Amino acid sequence: MVGLAAGDNAERLAEQAQRFRPAVVALATGEAADRFRAACPAFPGTVLAGGDALVAVASDPAADIVLCASSGTAGLEAVMAAIESGKRVALANKEVLVMAGELVTSAARRRGVSILPVDSEHNAIHQCLHGRAAHEVRRLILTASGGPFRDLPLADLDAVGPDAALRHPTWQMGRKITIDSATLMNKGLEVIEAHWLFRVPADAIDVVIHPQSIVHSLVELTDGSVIAQLGVTDMRLPIQYACSYPERWDGALPRLDLVRAGRLDFGAPDLDRFPCLRLAYRALRDGATHAVALNAANEVAVASFLEGRLGFTAIPAVIERVMNDHTPVPVSSVETVRRVDAWARGHAAVVAGELELHI
Amino acid sequence: MVGLAAGDNAERLAEQAQRFRPAVVALATGEAADRFRAACPAFPGTVLAGGDALVAVASDPAADIVLCASSGTAGLEAVMAAIESGKRVALANKEVLVMAGELVTSAARRRGVSILPVDSEHNAIHQCLHGRAAHEVRRLILTASGGPFRDLPLADLDAVGPDAALRHPTWQMGRKITIDSATLMNKGLEVIEAHWLFRVPADAIDVVIHPQSIVHSLVELTDGSVIAQLGVTDMRLPIQYACSYPERWDGALPRLDLVRAGRLDFGAPDLDRFPCLRLAYRALRDGATHAVALNAANEVAVASFLEGRLGFTAIPAVIERVMNDHTPVPVSSVETVRRVDAWARGHAAVVAGELELHI
Repeated sequence: MVGLAAGDNAERLAEQAQRFRPAVVALATGEAADRFRAACPAFPGTVLAGGDALVAVASDPAADIVLCASSGTAGLEAVMAAIESGKRVALANKEVLVMAGELVTSAARRRGVSILPVDSEHNAIHQCLHGRAAHEVRRLILTASGGPFRDLPLADLDAVGPDAALRHPTWQMGRKITIDSATLMNKGLEVIEAHWLFRVPADAIDVVIHPQSIVHSLVELTDGSVIAQLGVTDMRLPIQYACSYPERWDGALPRLDLVRAGRLDFGAPDLDRFPCLRLAYRALRDGATHAVALNAANEVAVASFLEGRLGFTAIPAVIERVMNDHTPVPVSSVETVRRVDAWARGHAAVVAGELELHI
Repeated sequence: MVGLAAGDNAERLAEQAQRFRPAVVALATGEAADRFRAACPAFPGTVLAGGDALVAVASDPAADIVLCASSGTAGLEAVMAAIESGKRVALANKEVLVMAGELVTSAARRRGVSILPVDSEHNAIHQCLHGRAAHEVRRLILTASGGPFRDLPLADLDAVGPDAALRHPTWQMGRKITIDSATLMNKGLEVIEAHWLFRVPADAIDVVIHPQSIVHSLVELTDGSVIAQLGVTDMRLPIQYACSYPERWDGALPRLDLVRAGRLDFGAPDLDRFPCLRLAYRALRDGATHAVALNAANEVAVASFLEGRLGFTAIPAVIERVMNDHTPVPVSSVETVRRVDAWARGHAAVVAGELELHI
C-alpha cells in the first residue's frame, strides 16, 4: 500500500495509515489534514491536502493499481489521472463511468490500461466474459435484489420514509447507494456502467430481480448458453479479484454453500414501480450528457429524500424533470461533465423544492 | 457428415443417411446391413457391417470430429481408434471414461487430441473452466435433478417399479440412463467421468440436487467465486458446443428465460436414499478396475429391474456384492477392461438371480 486517500474522515484514515503504513496520504482539506496529524503524530510519510491531493495520490509513480471508491467528479479526476499515469484502475465508483464513460474508456484504451470493476455485478460479468470473444456475447444480465420495496403495494410507495428505504435485504452499504437500491436507480447506473465497461448496447443489457443476491450477474452467449458468477455477498471478493486479476488468490473469504442457500428466485423488474430504471435506460440511449444530468439529479433528490424533505416517489419525478429540461452536449472533457453536473444539481434543487413535502 | 454408425436400428440409420448423405455407414451385423440396403437401396456410399465396422468409421481419414454416443465396450474401442487417428472426440458415452478413463485420457494426451464432453454437466464444467488454469480450481459441483424419487418416503422405495422410475422430471432420455437417474448412479458415473476429464480428485467433486436442471453444473475457484453454466434442457446445445469449440455458433436453439424459470432449488443428495452414488465414489477412490465392476454390475442390475425381476433397492445391493467380490487389477488395456466387464456381468447376473423378486 503506497498511498491512501480520504475526504474528511481523518480519524479513520489515521487508523488505516497506522495499519498499512503508506508513504503518502491525502485529505480533502487542510483542516482534515490537521486532524490526521493530530490523530497520527508519528506518521513518517507525506500528508497532502486540498483539491489536487487525490489526483497526486492516484498518479503516484510508486503505485501499480489504483482502487477508486470516492464518488462524484473528484473521483473522475483521480481516475483520469491514474489512467494517464498508466495504472490499472480497480473501480468502485460507478459515477465515473456513468458521467464520463466515453472519456474514461477511450483514455484507458489509448494508454493500454485496464479498468477492473469492483461493483459485484460488473465484477461477475468480467469473470463470466474471461476468455471469451466479444462476438460470442449476446446479452448481459445484471441481477438486482429488488430492494426493500419489491413487494410493497404500489400505492404505499408514496408514504415510504428514509428508515424503511435504508433497510436493504442483502447488502450493508452506504446511505445513498442503499436508497439507489430501493429505487432501482443503482441498477440503472449499473446498466450504463456495463455499457461502457463491456461495450455492449443498451438493448443487450437486461436486469432481473434476484432477491438473494447470490448470482451476482450472468452473460448469455450466442449459442444460448448462459454463464453466471455466484458467491457470498462480501465485497472483499470483487476487490481482491480486481487486484489479483488475471490470477486468483486463495482467500480466507467465506465460501458459498448452495445447499444452505437452498433457493434462488428470479423475476422481472416492474418499471411502474421503479421508474428510475427506465430513466437510466433512456439516458443511456439518448447519450451525450443525459447520464450526467440523470446522475446529478438523482444525487440531489436522494439527499433531499434522506433529509425527509422529498417523498420516495418524487425522486424519479425530480430526475425526469431535470432530464426533460436538459440540453445535452457531447461529453468532450472533464470540464464539460463538471459544468453539466453543476447545472443539473442546481436545477434539481429547484425542482425538488417545488415537489417538497409539506408536513 | 462423412460417416454414420448404428447398432441394429437400420431403419433409423437409413433415414439419417438419406438426410445427411455420409460416404460410409456402419452397422453391428450383416443382417442389419441387409435391412439398411433394403430401406435405402439408392445409397451410393459404403456399407460396413460387423465387429470392426464401428472402429473403421471412427478412424475414417475424412473425419475431423468423432461423436460417440454408443455404449459399452464397443464405444470404448471406437473412441480409442478415433483418438489414435488424431481426431477430436465429442463424447456422449460416459462408460468409456468410467471404465477406462486412464487409458483414454492418456492416449488423448499422447496424441494431442481433445475430448469434448457432451454430457450436459461436463459440458457445463468445460464451459466454466474455459480460460482458467487448473490451479485456480478448488471444486467441481455437478448438479443432479434427483430423479423422480427425490421426495418419496424411504420405506416406499422398495416397492418402486419400472414405470415410476422411467418418469424423469426434466430430461427425456433412454430407459437405462433414466433408471440411472432415479438411483443417482448416473451422477455417480458422472463423478468418475469428471475426475478423468478434468483431472480433479474425488474429494474435489461434489454433487448437489437441483430439481429444475437449469444450472447444468458449477465450478468453485480458489478465491471462493463460483462460475456456473445455465441453459434450457436441450442436448443440442452441448452437442453443438462440442463440435464448434473453441468457437460458438449462433444457434436457433431455445433460449433460457430465467424470469419464466422463476426459481432454482438446491439440496444435498441423501446417500441413504441413493447408495449408488456412494458406491461410485468408492469405486473412484479405490481405483483400478473397481469402476469397471461397478458399471457392469449396474447395467445388469438395471436390465433386471426393467424386466421386473429385481426390486429398485436391490440395484445397489447387486453392485455392492459384485464390488466386494471383485479382485481389482490395473486398467492396462482395453482387453483387461473387457475381461473384468465380462466377469462382473456374469457375477452380477448370479447375484441378481439370488435377489430376484418372487412374485
